[in-house]
Amino acid sequence: MTFSMSQVSLPSFEISLNALSAILDKAAAYAAAKKIDPSVLLHTRLSPNMFDLARQVQVAADNAKNGSARLAGVEPPRDEDNETTIDQLKARLARTVTYLKTLDRKAIDASAEREITFPLGPEKKGHMKGDDYLNHFVLPNFYFHCTTAYDILRHCGIELGKRDFMGTPVTL
Amino acid sequence: MTFSMSQVSLPSFEISLNALSAILDKAAAYAAAKKIDPSVLLHTRLSPNMFDLARQVQVAADNAKNGSARLAGVEPPRDEDNETTIDQLKARLARTVTYLKTLDRKAIDASAEREITFPLGPEKKGHMKGDDYLNHFVLPNFYFHCTTAYDILRHCGIELGKRDFMGTPVTL
Repeated sequence: MTFSMSQVSLPSFEISLNALSAILDKAAAYAAAKKIDPSVLLHTRLSPNMFDLARQVQVAADNAKNGSARLAGVEPPRDEDNETTIDQLKARLARTVTYLKTLDRKAIDASAEREITFPLGPEKKGHMKGDDYLNHFVLPNFYFHCTTAYDILRHCGIELGKRDFMGTPVTL
Repeated sequence: MTFSMSQVSLPSFEISLNALSAILDKAAAYAAAKKIDPSVLLHTRLSPNMFDLARQVQVAADNAKNGSARLAGVEPPRDEDNETTIDQLKARLARTVTYLKTLDRKAIDASAEREITFPLGPEKKGHMKGDDYLNHFVLPNFYFHCTTAYDILRHCGIELGKRDFMGTPVTL
Protein backbone atom coordinates (compact mmCIF):
# COMPACT_ATOMS: atom_id res chain seq x y z
CA MET A 1 0.00 0.00 0.00
CA THR A 2 1.33 3.42 -0.91
CA PHE A 3 1.29 6.44 1.31
CA SER A 4 -1.53 8.75 0.25
CA MET A 5 -3.01 12.21 0.68
CA SER A 6 -6.32 10.84 1.97
CA GLN A 7 -4.50 8.72 4.54
CA VAL A 8 -2.68 11.76 5.92
CA SER A 9 -5.85 13.85 6.10
CA LEU A 10 -9.13 12.00 6.72
CA PRO A 11 -8.23 9.60 9.58
CA SER A 12 -6.18 12.28 11.34
CA PHE A 13 -9.10 14.70 11.21
CA GLU A 14 -11.56 12.09 12.41
CA ILE A 15 -9.38 11.07 15.37
CA SER A 16 -8.74 14.65 16.45
CA LEU A 17 -12.33 15.88 15.97
CA ASN A 18 -13.60 12.96 18.04
CA ALA A 19 -10.92 13.72 20.63
CA LEU A 20 -12.07 17.34 20.72
CA SER A 21 -15.65 16.19 21.26
CA ALA A 22 -14.55 14.08 24.24
CA ILE A 23 -12.58 17.04 25.58
CA LEU A 24 -15.77 19.12 25.40
CA ASP A 25 -17.54 16.40 27.42
CA LYS A 26 -14.92 16.89 30.15
CA ALA A 27 -15.45 20.65 29.94
CA ALA A 28 -19.22 20.14 30.40
CA ALA A 29 -18.65 17.82 33.36
CA TYR A 30 -16.26 20.32 34.94
CA ALA A 31 -18.73 23.17 34.49
CA ALA A 32 -21.51 21.10 36.05
CA ALA A 33 -19.35 20.02 39.01
CA LYS A 34 -18.10 23.54 39.69
CA LYS A 35 -21.48 25.18 38.95
CA ILE A 36 -19.92 27.29 36.20
CA ASP A 37 -22.05 28.48 33.29
CA PRO A 38 -20.54 26.50 30.35
CA SER A 39 -20.75 29.61 28.19
CA VAL A 40 -18.00 31.11 30.37
CA LEU A 41 -15.69 28.37 29.12
CA LEU A 42 -16.87 28.80 25.53
CA HIS A 43 -16.05 32.51 25.68
CA THR A 44 -12.61 32.06 27.23
CA ARG A 45 -9.58 33.06 25.19
CA LEU A 46 -5.85 33.06 25.94
CA SER A 47 -5.39 36.63 24.74
CA PRO A 48 -7.95 39.36 23.99
CA ASN A 49 -7.22 39.20 20.26
CA MET A 50 -7.30 35.43 19.92
CA PHE A 51 -10.43 33.39 19.17
CA ASP A 52 -12.43 32.08 22.11
CA LEU A 53 -12.95 28.37 22.73
CA ALA A 54 -16.18 28.13 20.72
CA ARG A 55 -14.52 29.73 17.69
CA GLN A 56 -11.41 27.54 18.00
CA VAL A 57 -13.68 24.47 17.77
CA GLN A 58 -15.59 25.89 14.79
CA VAL A 59 -12.39 26.73 12.93
CA ALA A 60 -10.83 23.32 13.64
CA ALA A 61 -13.95 21.69 12.16
CA ASP A 62 -13.83 24.02 9.16
CA ASN A 63 -10.12 23.35 8.55
CA ALA A 64 -10.90 19.63 8.30
CA LYS A 65 -14.08 20.05 6.26
CA ASN A 66 -12.94 22.74 3.86
CA GLY A 67 -9.42 21.40 3.45
CA SER A 68 -10.59 17.89 2.62
CA ALA A 69 -13.40 19.08 0.35
CA ARG A 70 -11.09 21.34 -1.65
CA LEU A 71 -8.60 18.51 -2.10
CA ALA A 72 -11.47 16.26 -3.25
CA GLY A 73 -12.51 18.98 -5.73
CA VAL A 74 -15.98 19.55 -4.28
CA GLU A 75 -17.63 22.57 -2.70
CA PRO A 76 -17.81 22.14 1.07
CA PRO A 77 -21.16 22.72 2.79
CA ARG A 78 -21.25 25.97 4.76
CA ASP A 79 -21.84 26.02 8.50
CA GLU A 80 -23.53 29.00 10.09
CA ASP A 81 -21.10 29.28 13.04
CA ASN A 82 -24.06 29.88 15.33
CA GLU A 83 -23.25 27.32 18.02
CA THR A 84 -23.73 28.68 21.54
CA THR A 85 -23.63 25.50 23.64
CA ILE A 86 -21.26 22.60 24.14
CA ASP A 87 -23.88 20.20 22.76
CA GLN A 88 -24.19 22.27 19.60
CA LEU A 89 -20.41 22.30 19.16
CA LYS A 90 -20.30 18.54 19.65
CA ALA A 91 -23.01 18.19 16.98
CA ARG A 92 -20.91 20.36 14.66
CA LEU A 93 -17.90 18.09 15.20
CA ALA A 94 -19.99 14.94 14.64
CA ARG A 95 -21.51 16.42 11.47
CA THR A 96 -18.02 17.22 10.20
CA VAL A 97 -16.80 13.66 10.82
CA THR A 98 -19.87 12.32 8.98
CA TYR A 99 -19.17 14.67 6.07
CA LEU A 100 -15.52 13.58 5.82
CA LYS A 101 -16.70 10.00 5.29
CA THR A 102 -18.65 11.07 2.17
CA LEU A 103 -15.56 12.40 0.36
CA ASP A 104 -13.94 10.51 -2.51
CA ARG A 105 -10.56 9.30 -1.23
CA LYS A 106 -9.29 8.69 -4.75
CA ALA A 107 -10.01 12.30 -5.70
CA ILE A 108 -8.05 13.48 -2.65
CA ASP A 109 -5.18 11.12 -3.50
CA ALA A 110 -5.06 12.54 -7.04
CA SER A 111 -4.86 16.16 -5.91
CA ALA A 112 -1.14 16.44 -5.05
CA GLU A 113 -0.21 18.37 -8.19
CA ARG A 114 -3.51 20.22 -8.67
CA GLU A 115 -3.68 23.92 -7.79
CA ILE A 116 -6.01 24.53 -4.88
CA THR A 117 -7.59 27.96 -4.46
CA PHE A 118 -8.81 28.86 -1.00
CA PRO A 119 -9.90 31.98 0.89
CA LEU A 120 -7.36 33.81 3.04
CA GLY A 121 -9.52 36.10 5.12
CA PRO A 122 -12.62 37.80 3.70
CA GLU A 123 -11.14 38.99 0.39
CA LYS A 124 -7.79 37.43 -0.51
CA LYS A 125 -7.36 34.05 -2.17
CA GLY A 126 -4.48 31.63 -1.60
CA HIS A 127 -3.19 29.27 -4.27
CA MET A 128 -1.10 26.21 -3.49
CA LYS A 129 -0.40 22.81 -4.98
CA GLY A 130 -2.56 20.16 -3.31
CA ASP A 131 0.27 18.47 -1.44
CA ASP A 132 1.67 21.76 -0.14
CA TYR A 133 -1.84 22.91 0.76
CA LEU A 134 -2.35 19.79 2.89
CA ASN A 135 1.11 19.72 4.49
CA HIS A 136 1.79 23.40 4.98
CA PHE A 137 -1.64 24.97 5.34
CA VAL A 138 -4.41 22.55 6.33
CA LEU A 139 -2.57 20.32 8.81
CA PRO A 140 -0.76 23.05 10.76
CA ASN A 141 -3.92 25.17 10.90
CA PHE A 142 -6.05 22.22 11.96
CA TYR A 143 -3.72 21.16 14.76
CA PHE A 144 -3.25 24.79 15.80
CA HIS A 145 -6.96 25.19 16.55
CA CYS A 146 -7.37 21.75 18.17
CA THR A 147 -4.38 22.47 20.42
CA THR A 148 -5.51 25.97 21.33
CA ALA A 149 -8.99 24.66 22.27
CA TYR A 150 -7.26 22.15 24.55
CA ASP A 151 -4.88 24.81 25.91
CA ILE A 152 -7.79 27.12 26.79
CA LEU A 153 -9.44 24.37 28.82
CA ARG A 154 -6.18 23.44 30.55
CA HIS A 155 -5.74 27.11 31.38
CA CYS A 156 -9.27 27.07 32.88
CA GLY A 157 -8.15 24.29 35.22
CA ILE A 158 -9.85 21.32 33.57
CA GLU A 159 -7.99 18.07 34.13
CA LEU A 160 -6.92 16.91 30.71
CA GLY A 161 -3.83 15.05 29.58
CA LYS A 162 -2.01 14.49 26.32
CA ARG A 163 -4.04 11.33 25.76
CA ASP A 164 -7.21 13.42 25.63
CA PHE A 165 -5.61 15.48 22.89
CA MET A 166 -4.26 12.48 20.99
CA GLY A 167 -7.57 10.67 20.91
CA THR A 168 -7.13 7.00 20.13
CA PRO A 169 -4.67 5.33 22.44
CA VAL A 170 -1.28 4.30 21.15
CA THR A 171 -0.73 0.53 20.94
CA LEU A 172 1.47 -0.42 23.86
CA MET B 1 5.92 12.61 -8.24
CA THR B 2 4.23 10.48 -5.60
CA PHE B 3 3.20 11.64 -2.19
CA SER B 4 5.72 10.44 0.38
CA MET B 5 6.40 10.06 4.08
CA SER B 6 9.52 12.26 3.91
CA GLN B 7 7.53 14.97 2.16
CA VAL B 8 4.95 15.04 4.94
CA SER B 9 7.54 15.12 7.69
CA LEU B 10 10.86 16.84 6.88
CA PRO B 11 9.75 20.09 5.17
CA SER B 12 6.89 20.56 7.66
CA PHE B 13 9.29 20.23 10.58
CA GLU B 14 11.81 22.57 9.02
CA ILE B 15 9.21 25.27 8.32
CA SER B 16 7.71 25.09 11.80
CA LEU B 17 11.03 24.89 13.68
CA ASN B 18 12.26 27.94 11.78
CA ALA B 19 8.95 29.67 12.52
CA LEU B 20 9.38 28.85 16.20
CA SER B 21 12.87 30.34 16.12
CA ALA B 22 11.50 33.58 14.64
CA ILE B 23 8.76 33.59 17.30
CA LEU B 24 11.50 33.35 19.96
CA ASP B 25 13.18 36.38 18.35
CA LYS B 26 9.96 38.32 18.88
CA ALA B 27 9.83 37.10 22.47
CA ALA B 28 13.40 38.33 23.02
CA ALA B 29 12.58 41.71 21.47
CA TYR B 30 9.47 42.01 23.65
CA ALA B 31 11.43 41.15 26.80
CA ALA B 32 14.09 43.75 25.92
CA ALA B 33 11.49 46.45 25.15
CA LYS B 34 9.52 45.81 28.35
CA LYS B 35 12.63 45.22 30.48
CA ILE B 36 11.42 41.73 31.38
CA ASP B 37 13.95 39.02 32.25
CA PRO B 38 13.56 36.61 29.29
CA SER B 39 13.72 33.68 31.69
CA VAL B 40 10.32 34.77 33.01
CA LEU B 41 8.89 34.04 29.56
CA LEU B 42 10.80 30.74 29.31
CA HIS B 43 9.31 29.62 32.63
CA THR B 44 5.73 30.59 31.81
CA ARG B 45 3.16 27.83 31.51
CA LEU B 46 -0.59 27.88 30.79
CA SER B 47 -1.36 25.61 33.71
CA PRO B 48 0.76 24.53 36.70
CA ASN B 49 0.98 20.95 35.40
CA MET B 50 1.81 21.80 31.80
CA PHE B 51 5.33 22.25 30.44
CA ASP B 52 6.77 25.76 30.43
CA LEU B 53 7.80 27.57 27.25
CA ALA B 54 11.39 26.31 27.29
CA ARG B 55 10.26 22.70 27.61
CA GLN B 56 7.60 23.12 24.88
CA VAL B 57 10.36 24.23 22.51
CA GLN B 58 12.66 21.34 23.52
CA VAL B 59 9.88 18.78 23.07
CA ALA B 60 8.83 20.20 19.69
CA ALA B 61 12.45 19.87 18.52
CA ASP B 62 12.64 16.33 19.90
CA ASN B 63 9.35 15.30 18.23
CA ALA B 64 10.82 16.34 14.88
CA LYS B 65 14.28 14.87 15.50
CA ASN B 66 13.28 11.60 17.12
CA GLY B 67 10.24 10.99 14.93
CA SER B 68 12.18 11.50 11.71
CA ALA B 69 15.21 9.49 12.90
CA ARG B 70 13.07 6.51 13.95
CA LEU B 71 11.31 6.53 10.59
CA ALA B 72 14.72 6.65 8.87
CA GLY B 73 15.82 3.70 11.03
CA VAL B 74 18.68 5.47 12.77
CA GLU B 75 19.37 6.32 16.38
CA PRO B 76 18.71 10.04 17.00
CA PRO B 77 21.40 12.06 18.79
CA ARG B 78 20.43 12.97 22.35
CA ASP B 79 20.07 16.53 23.51
CA GLU B 80 20.78 17.41 27.11
CA ASP B 81 17.71 19.65 27.55
CA ASN B 82 19.88 22.12 29.42
CA GLU B 83 18.92 25.29 27.52
CA THR B 84 18.31 28.25 29.81
CA THR B 85 18.28 31.17 27.35
CA ILE B 86 16.41 32.10 24.20
CA ASP B 87 19.68 31.99 22.24
CA GLN B 88 20.35 28.46 23.43
CA LEU B 89 16.84 27.37 22.44
CA LYS B 90 17.29 28.95 19.01
CA ALA B 91 20.57 27.04 18.65
CA ARG B 92 18.74 23.83 19.57
CA LEU B 93 16.13 24.50 16.87
CA ALA B 94 18.82 25.30 14.28
CA ARG B 95 20.76 22.15 15.21
CA THR B 96 17.59 20.10 14.79
CA VAL B 97 16.91 21.55 11.34
CA THR B 98 20.52 20.78 10.34
CA TYR B 99 20.13 17.21 11.61
CA LEU B 100 16.89 16.67 9.67
CA LYS B 101 18.79 17.47 6.46
CA THR B 102 21.19 14.56 7.11
CA LEU B 103 18.44 11.91 7.15
CA ASP B 104 17.92 9.52 4.26
CA ARG B 105 14.60 10.48 2.67
CA LYS B 106 14.33 7.15 0.87
CA ALA B 107 14.61 5.30 4.18
CA ILE B 108 11.80 7.43 5.62
CA ASP B 109 9.68 6.85 2.50
CA ALA B 110 10.16 3.07 2.87
CA SER B 111 9.05 3.02 6.52
CA ALA B 112 5.25 3.07 6.12
CA GLU B 113 4.78 -0.62 6.89
CA ARG B 114 7.72 -1.04 9.28
CA GLU B 115 7.01 -1.30 13.01
CA ILE B 116 8.43 1.64 14.91
CA THR B 117 9.24 1.27 18.60
CA PHE B 118 9.41 4.45 20.62
CA PRO B 119 9.44 5.50 24.29
CA LEU B 120 6.17 6.50 25.94
CA GLY B 121 7.34 8.14 29.13
CA PRO B 122 10.33 6.85 31.08
CA GLU B 123 9.50 3.12 31.00
CA LYS B 124 6.80 2.15 28.50
CA LYS B 125 7.37 1.55 24.83
CA GLY B 126 4.93 2.28 22.01
CA HIS B 127 4.74 0.28 18.81
CA MET B 128 3.10 1.58 15.64
CA LYS B 129 3.41 1.08 11.91
CA GLY B 130 5.54 3.83 10.39
CA ASP B 131 2.68 5.58 8.61
CA ASP B 132 0.46 5.56 11.70
CA TYR B 133 3.39 6.69 13.84
CA LEU B 134 3.93 9.70 11.60
CA ASN B 135 0.25 10.61 11.12
CA HIS B 136 -1.16 9.83 14.53
CA PHE B 137 1.74 10.31 16.90
CA VAL B 138 4.58 12.46 15.56
CA LEU B 139 2.63 15.12 13.66
CA PRO B 140 -0.07 15.81 16.30
CA ASN B 141 2.56 15.86 19.06
CA PHE B 142 4.88 18.12 17.08
CA TYR B 143 2.16 20.64 16.26
CA PHE B 144 0.83 20.44 19.81
CA HIS B 145 4.11 21.67 21.27
CA CYS B 146 4.72 24.30 18.55
CA THR B 147 1.21 25.66 19.10
CA THR B 148 1.46 25.65 22.88
CA ALA B 149 4.77 27.53 22.72
CA TYR B 150 3.02 30.14 20.55
CA ASP B 151 -0.04 30.19 22.83
CA ILE B 152 2.12 30.82 25.91
CA LEU B 153 3.71 33.84 24.24
CA ARG B 154 0.33 35.16 23.04
CA HIS B 155 -0.92 34.75 26.59
CA CYS B 156 2.08 36.80 27.79
CA GLY B 157 0.96 39.63 25.52
CA ILE B 158 3.51 39.28 22.73
CA GLU B 159 2.18 40.46 19.38
CA LEU B 160 2.16 37.43 17.15
CA GLY B 161 -0.19 36.40 14.39
CA LYS B 162 -1.05 33.20 12.59
CA ARG B 163 1.59 33.98 9.97
CA ASP B 164 4.28 33.79 12.65
CA PHE B 165 3.02 30.31 13.49
CA MET B 166 2.72 29.20 9.87
CA GLY B 167 6.22 30.28 8.94
CA THR B 168 6.66 30.58 5.20
CA PRO B 169 4.07 32.84 3.65
CA VAL B 170 1.32 31.35 1.55
CA THR B 171 1.47 32.18 -2.16
CA LEU B 172 -1.17 34.81 -2.77
